[in-house]
Amino acid sequence: MTSLLRDRPATTPEMLAAFGDAAHLRAALDFEAALARAEAAEGLIGADAAARIRAVCAAFTCDPAALADAAAHAGTLAIPLVERLRARLAQDSPEAANALHRGATSQDVADTALMLQARHGVAILRGRARAISDALARLAEQHAATPMIGRTLMQAALPISFGLKAAGWKLGVDAALARLEREAGTALALQLGGPAGTMGGLTRGVAERMADDLGLAAPALPWHARREAIAGLAAALGVLVGAVGKIALDVALMAQSEVGEAFEPRQPGRGGSSAMAHKRNPTGCQVALSAAARAPGLVAAILSGLPQQHERGLGGWQAEGPVLAELFLIADGALAAMAAVAEGLEVDSAAMARNLSAADVGDDIGLSVELVARALDLGREEG
Amino acid sequence: MTSLLRDRPATTPEMLAAFGDAAHLRAALDFEAALARAEAAEGLIGADAAARIRAVCAAFTCDPAALADAAAHAGTLAIPLVERLRARLAQDSPEAANALHRGATSQDVADTALMLQARHGVAILRGRARAISDALARLAEQHAATPMIGRTLMQAALPISFGLKAAGWKLGVDAALARLEREAGTALALQLGGPAGTMGGLTRGVAERMADDLGLAAPALPWHARREAIAGLAAALGVLVGAVGKIALDVALMAQSEVGEAFEPRQPGRGGSSAMAHKRNPTGCQVALSAAARAPGLVAAILSGLPQQHERGLGGWQAEGPVLAELFLIADGALAAMAAVAEGLEVDSAAMARNLSAADVGDDIGLSVELVARALDLGREEG
Amino acid sequence: MTSLLRDRPATTPEMLAAFGDAAHLRAALDFEAALARAEAAEGLIGADAAARIRAVCAAFTCDPAALADAAAHAGTLAIPLVERLRARLAQDSPEAANALHRGATSQDVADTALMLQARHGVAILRGRARAISDALARLAEQHAATPMIGRTLMQAALPISFGLKAAGWKLGVDAALARLEREAGTALALQLGGPAGTMGGLTRGVAERMADDLGLAAPALPWHARREAIAGLAAALGVLVGAVGKIALDVALMAQSEVGEAFEPRQPGRGGSSAMAHKRNPTGCQVALSAAARAPGLVAAILSGLPQQHERGLGGWQAEGPVLAELFLIADGALAAMAAVAEGLEVDSAAMARNLSAADVGDDIGLSVELVARALDLGREEG
Amino acid sequence: MTSLLRDRPATTPEMLAAFGDAAHLRAALDFEAALARAEAAEGLIGADAAARIRAVCAAFTCDPAALADAAAHAGTLAIPLVERLRARLAQDSPEAANALHRGATSQDVADTALMLQARHGVAILRGRARAISDALARLAEQHAATPMIGRTLMQAALPISFGLKAAGWKLGVDAALARLEREAGTALALQLGGPAGTMGGLTRGVAERMADDLGLAAPALPWHARREAIAGLAAALGVLVGAVGKIALDVALMAQSEVGEAFEPRQPGRGGSSAMAHKRNPTGCQVALSAAARAPGLVAAILSGLPQQHERGLGGWQAEGPVLAELFLIADGALAAMAAVAEGLEVDSAAMARNLSAADVGDDIGLSVELVARALDLGREEG
Repeated sequence: MTSLLRDRPATTPEMLAAFGDAAHLRAALDFEAALARAEAAEGLIGADAAARIRAVCAAFTCDPAALADAAAHAGTLAIPLVERLRARLAQDSPEAANALHRGATSQDVADTALMLQARHGVAILRGRARAISDALARLAEQHAATPMIGRTLMQAALPISFGLKAAGWKLGVDAALARLEREAGTALALQLGGPAGTMGGLTRGVAERMADDLGLAAPALPWHARREAIAGLAAALGVLVGAVGKIALDVALMAQSEVGEAFEPRQPGRGGSSAMAHKRNPTGCQVALSAAARAPGLVAAILSGLPQQHERGLGGWQAEGPVLAELFLIADGALAAMAAVAEGLEVDSAAMARNLSAADVGDDIGLSVELVARALDLGREEG
Repeated sequence: MTSLLRDRPATTPEMLAAFGDAAHLRAALDFEAALARAEAAEGLIGADAAARIRAVCAAFTCDPAALADAAAHAGTLAIPLVERLRARLAQDSPEAANALHRGATSQDVADTALMLQARHGVAILRGRARAISDALARLAEQHAATPMIGRTLMQAALPISFGLKAAGWKLGVDAALARLEREAGTALALQLGGPAGTMGGLTRGVAERMADDLGLAAPALPWHARREAIAGLAAALGVLVGAVGKIALDVALMAQSEVGEAFEPRQPGRGGSSAMAHKRNPTGCQVALSAAARAPGLVAAILSGLPQQHERGLGGWQAEGPVLAELFLIADGALAAMAAVAEGLEVDSAAMARNLSAADVGDDIGLSVELVARALDLGREEG
Repeated sequence: MTSLLRDRPATTPEMLAAFGDAAHLRAALDFEAALARAEAAEGLIGADAAARIRAVCAAFTCDPAALADAAAHAGTLAIPLVERLRARLAQDSPEAANALHRGATSQDVADTALMLQARHGVAILRGRARAISDALARLAEQHAATPMIGRTLMQAALPISFGLKAAGWKLGVDAALARLEREAGTALALQLGGPAGTMGGLTRGVAERMADDLGLAAPALPWHARREAIAGLAAALGVLVGAVGKIALDVALMAQSEVGEAFEPRQPGRGGSSAMAHKRNPTGCQVALSAAARAPGLVAAILSGLPQQHERGLGGWQAEGPVLAELFLIADGALAAMAAVAEGLEVDSAAMARNLSAADVGDDIGLSVELVARALDLGREEG
Repeated sequence: MTSLLRDRPATTPEMLAAFGDAAHLRAALDFEAALARAEAAEGLIGADAAARIRAVCAAFTCDPAALADAAAHAGTLAIPLVERLRARLAQDSPEAANALHRGATSQDVADTALMLQARHGVAILRGRARAISDALARLAEQHAATPMIGRTLMQAALPISFGLKAAGWKLGVDAALARLEREAGTALALQLGGPAGTMGGLTRGVAERMADDLGLAAPALPWHARREAIAGLAAALGVLVGAVGKIALDVALMAQSEVGEAFEPRQPGRGGSSAMAHKRNPTGCQVALSAAARAPGLVAAILSGLPQQHERGLGGWQAEGPVLAELFLIADGALAAMAAVAEGLEVDSAAMARNLSAADVGDDIGLSVELVARALDLGREEG
């Protein structure tokens, strides 16, 4: 399911699965099942019809390629999917076929399915970001007083400690994860508005029950044409990629042959060259920096779509799904790569001392040790 | 100080002033003055030196053009500014000249000055956003049950109420302002790290006193190479522009000659044509949509700069100031324009009824009235 | 191989194939085969070794997923691919195994393979753009004098002819295709520089023979760290998407329920709604506008990568492949969709007359007919 | 007229003048004067009226700030400008007042004025790019055989010559300038379409005469809603900035304290630090890299605007002027900075030899010398 050119090494199998066909289809089916249960509980459809809908949704399988063709033709996944589900239901229960998707519209399915997938994506990223943060905390603690040259504008400036640098990296990742959690808390919400967003034929109770069932927030109102939360989520992903990109660039600069202060962990077969056996390339940093080069434009694409027309946009809305998926994919590639780098970073404190000494600016690392301690305390308080 | 091509009608005199030369210079001087006071309070410099520094900073004036040339040559404003201040101080007090800028670096001045200006910018935008929100709340309340056709994918779909549309606009602006406040709460922080960010020769107390004095947050650590908060602020500005861009696009679509459901307020001489006297152009919407076209790329530029090199980046950091200024400028142009539009919007409910009737889809506006009420209650709870 | 969320309806099966695993692998194998033949012709390796290499490359198959995993681990496709090829060659001819990939490096394979795929992509787009242009020429000719209201700033202005509008669309697509051809003429070039770009152990003749063999331009020098041509190609794709996006937006505006001047062709099952049977959504325009929302950020990502480090960039370079692929994919989705729209556009000249009449600005279409004729002549001269 | 925060050191006085108020106003006046002359020559207005219009345009002055306020209010510069001109003409000749701006519209003035300014901008950039290219040719020739380590993925790889690196930089700038010239050749065209682009009341001859008079291309048709040429010009500027950004990044990497292979020229007072007297910052590279961080988002903004509505876009069109101006401004800042760097680059070939030796990969620079010669010949052929 992966593509040599598009997906590897830019992303991970876990995130590809979270945004893959099976997950997307499952999320759409979960929407229909939850809708039926909630509508039955609110008395809008019969309990038996709801049970049948849930059973058919649970058991539904199909050829994703054929469904994709049909979705491309129809312009939305929900149309052929609902059609297929309805056809199966009609065999046993015309009532259930009729009750399916009651009051909902394609966008309700698409938005809710995307948020279910995004929730999974956020969970994956949370784990990666914490692993990076933990590894950086260890580095910061261990090297709180390890002197090295601080560099500004890419020139030797004055001494710092490597722990202070690592603590800065850690705070950056922590802050970016905190922003992602904040934005996810708002964005990961059920969409249920019906064809024009008026919830015609629905009740507030349906939305609350569905949200509860699916583990999403229940928004005060349908958000079909208010996409700020999606944009906020996208921006938070972009900032997170940038935060690990910062680490990647610093590590790559430190790993330069003439600097030699830190190196990605050795892994047999990784970071080599098809032509130069002696090379040890910063392959993890490469993945993160590649993501950092791509993320800003993806965030911009989603921001561009904010002025959506009327009650459902034409173009801007449809761009969100693939672009948000791409952001999650490259974010996870970047975080997974940098988790491995942070956990296995080889630090050469002798090289740091040598480069510092060459700069001839003494060895006063100022309040570095105190600042590291404060940074680590912050993490403990919040952790 | 404005530019015909670059600034008008894209922005406002208020925001131009907030990011103009006088404001920038004043913010830089305020930094130096606050630094001196805090250092004196902490016993790092003499009280008399501090007093002289504060007096010279308060009285300092210069030719901005000459200072700009010197800054362009030196690569940073702080160098020629500190030099000029020091020259004035040296006339009376070599000790004060020597105490000036003690322990600080150019980036401390530049970042702190930018955050002081950004604080002003946020305050201006807050007022505009609230004005828009209030005007939209009135529209939503007044038209909670005014039926119109809901449009999805730019096609007539099913009935909604105009109040529901206005309530959605309002929630979008409210959410965007809330995000801006959240991000500003983190980003509007003092920068004080010294040449390599170790706070060498400084104390925690200096930072706390300065932050208090300047009305900025006191960050746990210097953030010289962690730019996530700036990026978050920029993204929040981009989302806010998009939220008003959404309103602008909807109004422009409703104002189309064949639709005729809503119009910008008439203002003599505004929205005309140099060739067609009969025209009534949606000039406010134009300003907002122009901003919405520009903001995503500006946000992307700041996100691109997140992977900054080591202890002070080369290029990415220097891009932040002008790009963030541009975002504030166009955001205020957009908000000011849409505040006027929202406050004076002419609604033609007869045209709405006519277009709805032509769509032949009945007049059931679903839960529109209830949803409007909930949206307005939300605002009241939070307000 | 397609993804429900990422690929459909955004792109076409043809372009997915052009940038799919099989095509990428085949292009990489073609590189190695052409290299061997050229090196044999130049006397750098034995003719027999070259023949064996070509035979193994022609017959090579493997599990793309396993290869993708290996490539992700190694950081580049060439490493595991060359390794596998070498292993097969070694069974029969250690000399051929040794001669494989002689003097080349991973980037030579990756860049050349991408350009081979891009050549295919350009050919697909050329066909689409010509189909659109031809269809628009017919519309322009047919409606050269069909009066309608011209609209500026989304307001009725003065009369034009629909043919003039269609002629403008056509010129836009023609100009964008011409730019794409120009940029492709430069960008679709062989890459052959060896590990550091010095062509060590190679000859100019090898490059010229390979370029001839593969149907690519032979660049004066390796372009491993000069990516302007790639950026120019990406920008041309972005402009082309924008040119069809312009048509899509105009058609969507004309297809609005209250305007009703033009409609996408009816296709059973396309443009419907999962909830509203009466709707006829502009689904082709949606695909093009979605592409137009995404393309600018992708172009920006490639522009961001121009400042590549030294002789092979870290991050920026690796981002180009997937981003360029994405641009081709969405460009083809947009062009295919708009080719169908242009070819089957339903024009309601009575509605145009009605809307024009309502604007009460007379019916003087100025030089519209003459301008249409000139536009069509231009196409004939160049065609 | 410059802004400390927005303009310096990001741009140059020359480019600020080219896009300043006086230049913009002058270009708009030149449009009106050329229109009058051409219309008189075509017999559309009287010769005497034309003469008076030209005289008033030549002598016109006003307070730019007041005009900017009026333009912001009206939504376009042309409205208050034409009004003021007409008022002056009316004093002496009602006929001339009546003949002014005949058949034209605001967009004709705005687009043509912008292209006149852009022509000046291109001329400035051409001079800078040639200066860089010449300086790089000298470096390439002088160091054709100076060995240094080639670096891929930011790691030592194999030997190259510094001349080969410089030749690559030169080819990048040459190719980017050639693209800019190509795009300028298309984009720098007169706009004359009248209110809805039909040239109503005008003739082809008016356009041809005006184009000739103003030194712009005469487009086959008005291009009011086809913005591909503007987008192509913007993209070419973005690529040019990236090409010098590449040089800047390489120089900054070579200038790192531990590498020490090349340095920006010493200039008293430039590249220092407000806190560290020993530093020698790569200030020119900083300006170029800052521009390279900003340009992609600006190009994206213009690409976003391609789908303009009908006969004159709302928002996207108005964004082009300020964004294109910004691109010219930062491009010139970058090129001027890198011209100084290229012309005065201090090369330490002993450091190159030392770093190469440390890499322990021999000293075979392959075909570097031959490749440099070919690169320089290319320039001579084209020059």
